[in-house]
Amino acid sequence: MRFNSLLFFLLFTVSGFTQTSDSLTLEKIYGEVLGSSSCYDNLRVLCKTIGHRLAGSPQADAAISWAENTALANDFDTVYLMPVSVPRWERGFTERASFVLGNDTVALPIRALGGSVGTQGVVQGEIVMARSIEELREMGREKVAGKIVFLNKPMNALLINTGAAYGGAFDIRSQGASEAARLGAVACIIRSLTLADDRYPHTGAMSYAEDVVKIPAAALSSADAYTLSQHCAKEPVRFLLEMNCKSYPRTTQYNVIGELKGSTLPEEYIVVGGHLDSWDIGEGAHDDGAGVVQSIEVLRCLKAIGYQPKRTIRCVLFINEEFGNDGGITYAEQVRLRNEYHFAAIESDGGGFSPRGFNLEGSDGHFERLNSFRSLLEPFGLYQFKRGWSGVDIAPLKNERTALCGLSVDTQRYFDYHHSDNDRFENVNKRELQLGAAAMASLVYLIDQHGTE
Amino acid sequence: MRFNSLLFFLLFTVSGFTQTSDSLTLEKIYGEVLGSSSCYDNLRVLCKTIGHRLAGSPQADAAISWAENTALANDFDTVYLMPVSVPRWERGFTERASFVLGNDTVALPIRALGGSVGTQGVVQGEIVMARSIEELREMGREKVAGKIVFLNKPMNALLINTGAAYGGAFDIRSQGASEAARLGAVACIIRSLTLADDRYPHTGAMSYAEDVVKIPAAALSSADAYTLSQHCAKEPVRFLLEMNCKSYPRTTQYNVIGELKGSTLPEEYIVVGGHLDSWDIGEGAHDDGAGVVQSIEVLRCLKAIGYQPKRTIRCVLFINEEFGNDGGITYAEQVRLRNEYHFAAIESDGGGFSPRGFNLEGSDGHFERLNSFRSLLEPFGLYQFKRGWSGVDIAPLKNERTALCGLSVDTQRYFDYHHSDNDRFENVNKRELQLGAAAMASLVYLIDQHGTE
Repeated sequence: MRFNSLLFFLLFTVSGFTQTSDSLTLEKIYGEVLGSSSCYDNLRVLCKTIGHRLAGSPQADAAISWAENTALANDFDTVYLMPVSVPRWERGFTERASFVLGNDTVALPIRALGGSVGTQGVVQGEIVMARSIEELREMGREKVAGKIVFLNKPMNALLINTGAAYGGAFDIRSQGASEAARLGAVACIIRSLTLADDRYPHTGAMSYAEDVVKIPAAALSSADAYTLSQHCAKEPVRFLLEMNCKSYPRTTQYNVIGELKGSTLPEEYIVVGGHLDSWDIGEGAHDDGAGVVQSIEVLRCLKAIGYQPKRTIRCVLFINEEFGNDGGITYAEQVRLRNEYHFAAIESDGGGFSPRGFNLEGSDGHFERLNSFRSLLEPFGLYQFKRGWSGVDIAPLKNERTALCGLSVDTQRYFDYHHSDNDRFENVNKRELQLGAAAMASLVYLIDQHGTE
Repeated sequence: MRFNSLLFFLLFTVSGFTQTSDSLTLEKIYGEVLGSSSCYDNLRVLCKTIGHRLAGSPQADAAISWAENTALANDFDTVYLMPVSVPRWERGFTERASFVLGNDTVALPIRALGGSVGTQGVVQGEIVMARSIEELREMGREKVAGKIVFLNKPMNALLINTGAAYGGAFDIRSQGASEAARLGAVACIIRSLTLADDRYPHTGAMSYAEDVVKIPAAALSSADAYTLSQHCAKEPVRFLLEMNCKSYPRTTQYNVIGELKGSTLPEEYIVVGGHLDSWDIGEGAHDDGAGVVQSIEVLRCLKAIGYQPKRTIRCVLFINEEFGNDGGITYAEQVRLRNEYHFAAIESDGGGFSPRGFNLEGSDGHFERLNSFRSLLEPFGLYQFKRGWSGVDIAPLKNERTALCGLSVDTQRYFDYHHSDNDRFENVNKRELQLGAAAMASLVYLIDQHGTE
């Protein structure tokens, strides 16, 4: 009885202390992040002085230098670059389209899909519209050959999770051109992957199957896709397309890495990251400028509150998530070559929106531990701790030992901006951005203190 | 054993059925709301054809007519107006301010606080700055008399809940002028209640204590408050203010009420509501156009999916929340006079942002029942079911029997727009608005089916 009482007393005291100490540290983290404008100011500089930064471009070079200098300016213990081979594709100067109704020619904004071939002059043809890849296949070669395929598949607005809606329409962008080429089409245009009703076309990666002729591929805005579909339902519509986008030989760019060295377990790594590259339009503010500045902020704020991590906290700013995930793949290869033990990796690549929690890819033990942090994180508005997708860049790190966590944010507005000219600094809210950084820093702290399982 | 097994079977089957039936209905509700643009289109019309609509103004008359016609157009079973006595205050044509540094005069945007007297020509004086009402009081009459008080108290950015940060700085707007007048000041200017760093001044209600001379009161933007504070810290700054705002005798306007009649318990009411009035700048899009169109949408969508409510579902669009809560007070008086049993009331007045759950004012039984809906609502992103503030308009309904629920939304952006020219339709996201309406309709359905305790 006496022993049990003592044990009870000790357990109670220790766990009581830990809880209090953890809560106090989380409050310090939130205070530091919300009280400083560092992460918002960094995003402004990245978006406004460099702007968009497609992997392989001079702007991506500038972003790499900026990221390295920003990490150095924050006195991280180690800052270095990791070479990564990346593709190089350029949109070029000419990018225009019109549809023709009788004597009327109506110009409309388009954006070549990333990786598309150019048109070599103007391509034109009658439009054949399909609502899905399946519907296109059913049309067969007879109806499609020599024409311009218009894949008009909207994202499903009835899904609450807009990421799932994106996944459901993604195939028209990634495979649409190949499927159309297989049936003899001369070009492929798609409805932009967005839930907004506006005139911004949204680009994004596409690729060609090995067995097809490469035909040009471009996106129309959702509003123009609607207009065009109304005309196509009534009468034949001709479409004109000219783009001089082009691919070039691969080049070398860099993942940017900064660390806070661990005090007692420096050989165990906790990674936070986002991707430095963006599409070559807009400013890559939500995708993924937000993740970049948040990841830098995690290390800055832990250092600023005087936290001495047990493990090494590593910020990895990946190059080329958008167009082949070269940064993520190269990083994971290096981790294996160096035999580094990655304890956990946390990615932010869902935009700088209000965080709701974390998605986890990992073991049952990882999941239990993540859930044990719930009561500490709920006061900060973090409620969702689910199994689910973590992030493209950290996905290649997947193994039994590493807990992969994705910052889960409110998804409603993401695809309004994603891969479009509308993904600008002005569309990121300072506090929402900061809360994401503080959530990541809090999880890093809790994992460092209590492990992942 | 046999009996128990049967009981188990029955219980399991019945509860299994209910769960499935509830889930299916919630899916129908979300499908109907997300699949229609009705509530977003209504907000566009309210914001763009009527715009702001301060109680007592001709625009508020127009909004009342619009709301009545919209309810009629949606074929609600009963639509009627409830007379409410409201104050009438007008901003007037002149509203300008400058500060003077040596020979320089710098103009800056201001907004009179609602209820302020005018300046009767230009008021001018040296600025005396205080960070809080307490600091102002400590300065005493000697330092304040004849001067213009500048209350420069920022909202606390370290609080996660921006509503709490607003509550913490609210006194400078509501009582600042009276406190300044008590010490002999000639005018009172305040830092706007916002967390944004921009040049929008934010208005809002103020009132005068009975024992003071009424002095003019106005708000500066947060950016100008910062600039001015920097100058005040270094040197004497003179300030010039001219406003011709004015109060007029009270007038009569209306709460707009629409109902879906209950089938089996028509004398029991479930209210959904928001307030039809707004401040007299901007478009009152988030505050509270959102709540208005969401409340209309609740009835529209329940009707559209063919739901026959047991209880009467009543949409109440209150007049004059902003400036004395006359609509809410009058409504509660009428409820008592008519001896109507109000089962539950749900208000949306936190802006058209992503919903997170509901706040409840009610009994332990109400709270348990609300929490029993959790598993049904979590798939739709609703996680927060807490005791907390429900809403200004429904607060006068408070008694032991009525469950008062406030739609709880993400609060991060609300005070960027609140009571300012920036509260415009363009700053409301369609899906976030819709999700709020669907959340309210879901709770109405669950309460109608399962009661409140």
